[in-house]
Amino acid sequence: MSLYLDWLKEQNMSLFTDFYELTMCASYFDNNKLDLATFDLFIRRLPENRSYLLFAGLEQVLLYLKTVKFTEEHLVYLKKQGFNQQFLDYLKDFKFTGDVWAVPEGTVAFPCEPLIRVTAPIIEAQLVETFLLNTVNLQTMIATKASHVVNAAKGKSVIEFGLRREHGIDAGLKVARNSYIAGCQGTSNVLAGFLYGIPVFGTMAHSFIMSYKREIDAFRAFARTFPNKSTILIDTYDNYEGVEKAAIVAKELEKKGFKLNGVRLDSGDLIEVSKKVRKLLDDKGLQYVKIFASGDLDEFEIEELLTNDAKIDAFGVGTKMGTSADKPFVDVIYKLCETKGEQGKFSPIMKLSEGKTTLPGRKQVYRLTDENGNYSKDVIALANEKVNGDPLLIKVMEKGEIVIDLPSIEEIRTVVAENLAKLPKKYKKLTKSEAYTVELSRELKNLIKALRKTLRKSI
Amino acid sequence: MSLYLDWLKEQNMSLFTDFYELTMCASYFDNNKLDLATFDLFIRRLPENRSYLLFAGLEQVLLYLKTVKFTEEHLVYLKKQGFNQQFLDYLKDFKFTGDVWAVPEGTVAFPCEPLIRVTAPIIEAQLVETFLLNTVNLQTMIATKASHVVNAAKGKSVIEFGLRREHGIDAGLKVARNSYIAGCQGTSNVLAGFLYGIPVFGTMAHSFIMSYKREIDAFRAFARTFPNKSTILIDTYDNYEGVEKAAIVAKELEKKGFKLNGVRLDSGDLIEVSKKVRKLLDDKGLQYVKIFASGDLDEFEIEELLTNDAKIDAFGVGTKMGTSADKPFVDVIYKLCETKGEQGKFSPIMKLSEGKTTLPGRKQVYRLTDENGNYSKDVIALANEKVNGDPLLIKVMEKGEIVIDLPSIEEIRTVVAENLAKLPKKYKKLTKSEAYTVELSRELKNLIKALRKTLRKSI
Repeated sequence: MSLYLDWLKEQNMSLFTDFYELTMCASYFDNNKLDLATFDLFIRRLPENRSYLLFAGLEQVLLYLKTVKFTEEHLVYLKKQGFNQQFLDYLKDFKFTGDVWAVPEGTVAFPCEPLIRVTAPIIEAQLVETFLLNTVNLQTMIATKASHVVNAAKGKSVIEFGLRREHGIDAGLKVARNSYIAGCQGTSNVLAGFLYGIPVFGTMAHSFIMSYKREIDAFRAFARTFPNKSTILIDTYDNYEGVEKAAIVAKELEKKGFKLNGVRLDSGDLIEVSKKVRKLLDDKGLQYVKIFASGDLDEFEIEELLTNDAKIDAFGVGTKMGTSADKPFVDVIYKLCETKGEQGKFSPIMKLSEGKTTLPGRKQVYRLTDENGNYSKDVIALANEKVNGDPLLIKVMEKGEIVIDLPSIEEIRTVVAENLAKLPKKYKKLTKSEAYTVELSRELKNLIKALRKTLRKSI
Repeated sequence: MSLYLDWLKEQNMSLFTDFYELTMCASYFDNNKLDLATFDLFIRRLPENRSYLLFAGLEQVLLYLKTVKFTEEHLVYLKKQGFNQQFLDYLKDFKFTGDVWAVPEGTVAFPCEPLIRVTAPIIEAQLVETFLLNTVNLQTMIATKASHVVNAAKGKSVIEFGLRREHGIDAGLKVARNSYIAGCQGTSNVLAGFLYGIPVFGTMAHSFIMSYKREIDAFRAFARTFPNKSTILIDTYDNYEGVEKAAIVAKELEKKGFKLNGVRLDSGDLIEVSKKVRKLLDDKGLQYVKIFASGDLDEFEIEELLTNDAKIDAFGVGTKMGTSADKPFVDVIYKLCETKGEQGKFSPIMKLSEGKTTLPGRKQVYRLTDENGNYSKDVIALANEKVNGDPLLIKVMEKGEIVIDLPSIEEIRTVVAENLAKLPKKYKKLTKSEAYTVELSRELKNLIKALRKTLRKSI
């Protein structure tokens, strides 16, 4: 965490923003519009084949809000972009001073529920939009996708292997972080291991095998270096010839008092191959040698493998999870829901465009549980309304200072596990999952009705 | 560029690697396997609806190779992961000392053509695999996607607007870089403007409009701040009511000697809306006010709009381009193609797995042109073979030192434009494009034939 903080500071993430945030802010400033406003960050709809969201990325949001500032170099650049000196002087002293409420990281969430609620002078609240959307989009998308993959694996280990196809350096780190939070056992990304303490895994590539004249020479060389923890890739030439050679090396290791950890399958019909390989190993008394599978896997492929009783102990999942390949974004948005008016009173704001309606006013989300403590439904209500259930949004920042202890990655992982344990099975199937109920409270509905009438007139 | 270099140094990208690169290297080291090897980086196949690739990411590859090293902190971490002291001592002095040949950034390329060729002691060549794949995957994917979007826009401006949904900070920067290289006019990403000098664009969001009681008050406030260059978002409530108010503001600006730059459409049927808005503006003598369109656009949508004569002057393209949403990765791989054997002779290496065959030996790509200087076909040949055509791979690094002047982003953009001008139209349609011919040379074919025979025996 502190490393990430250092990095943000050095990188001056203030300019990591859409240009229009700055032009809007310049105009707010120029027109002396400095009042408080509240924005909701939420996700409009579930991506196909996801039955819930895992909210993630709050830590990076809070560290960004705490550190965002403009350097002299930035201001020189912005001056060249045509901003006037008064606004640049304002930016020179810019600091985020707002209050932030948010759902704890790792919480199961649903569309339209405010996940982060920012109340700040409108310039501050507007300027931070792009960073918040960017980091929540990536992290929630990956945590959600990885969680569905982990569900499909039904308790068998999943390792995140997608670094080579993830979208750059930051994505590589965040994919590792969020797939671990979601329940993966680890990652291939060594930098993520170093920075976040996530367990790292990996063995060998085909090139390693091919660099030796004979396959068994490659196996022996590797086992010599890692006698305690070799997992041998057996498909370079032929899975069945490969496993025979792996078995020879396993027996050689046994004589030296070591055990081969496993074999890895990376191609072919994994159902059939895994069964045959398991039998070949078992017949030689190598029941302890695990079978690890990789190669173009995702949640559907894993479900198919396990439904067909594939003999696989752990899965390496790469590109499809690490890029959320079937849907590489979530519909995360950040919408104005109230502004402080002339009389110092907050007025609720609502967008009416077809299919893009937003929920007005400052809100809270309540989660109701059944007699067993399982989640039964959520209610989105006004913040000051009295509603049954546990409020999901908690105050995380006050006047620009973080007011919670940031949870460790292990603690967030525990939040995920606890949340998912309380979400009934019918809501977490891979396909045709039942839709979880999210209602609007009576007062919120009344507010919407009232606003629809006045808004139609006042434009 | 220098900023990027500083950043890489600070970030110590040596650990940005799959764990298996390190375990393989440890085993190579342990088994005294230190000979030279050559790896090819190439893309196995074209993503659907792409008819060519734009190779990008070489600058970051070379800066990484020049700077990769392990710090004391890294070695402490790796020791905990079980690597032995001899290997750690080796890593302490690790430096990439190899030779690299590559296709210039911005070159049009095709599947199976080596884009980067690395010859180095096998540990060095192996260790750098993950970073090379990661950066070429993202950058080539985006340059290729953006190039197809720019083609569809037929000379009208395209601005990259996807920052909020791109996969993190590094992706945001690289998407801006590579869409600009590919021919976009600029980006919304201010940090990319600051770091790379890419022109930045942006105006206002719906929240800006909604923060004012009346839409026209918002328009006036913005025009007051940016009298010379306002583009007004007109769809918050209703496009046609919006454009009427924009016209009022345009006339008010005229009186002060200014001109409204444009209006932006962000929803609705853009064909119909743009035609009506154009007419409404023209009828008021506002022919000079441009129409800018955004909202879920990609190359297919743009082609549809222009085919139907939509009155749009420029396009803002976001998520679908910035995440390459229809295919968020390319099949980029890095394969061993030769090793130096015991007698100091290089032996070609080839992978035979079904559907994953690789091309053996050290290779060059030749591009043939017709009598007009247009590209007619490519030939992949052995490096020392005599073949007609212009060689695409040039030496970019020798003994770990960069031996070319790294081109500026503007120069790379020019390479792209020149390359695409020489690629006949039939090869760059959005759908059903003709397949460009890539042949294997006679000697390469002979080598493959010979290797197939011996490999089947020698495993």
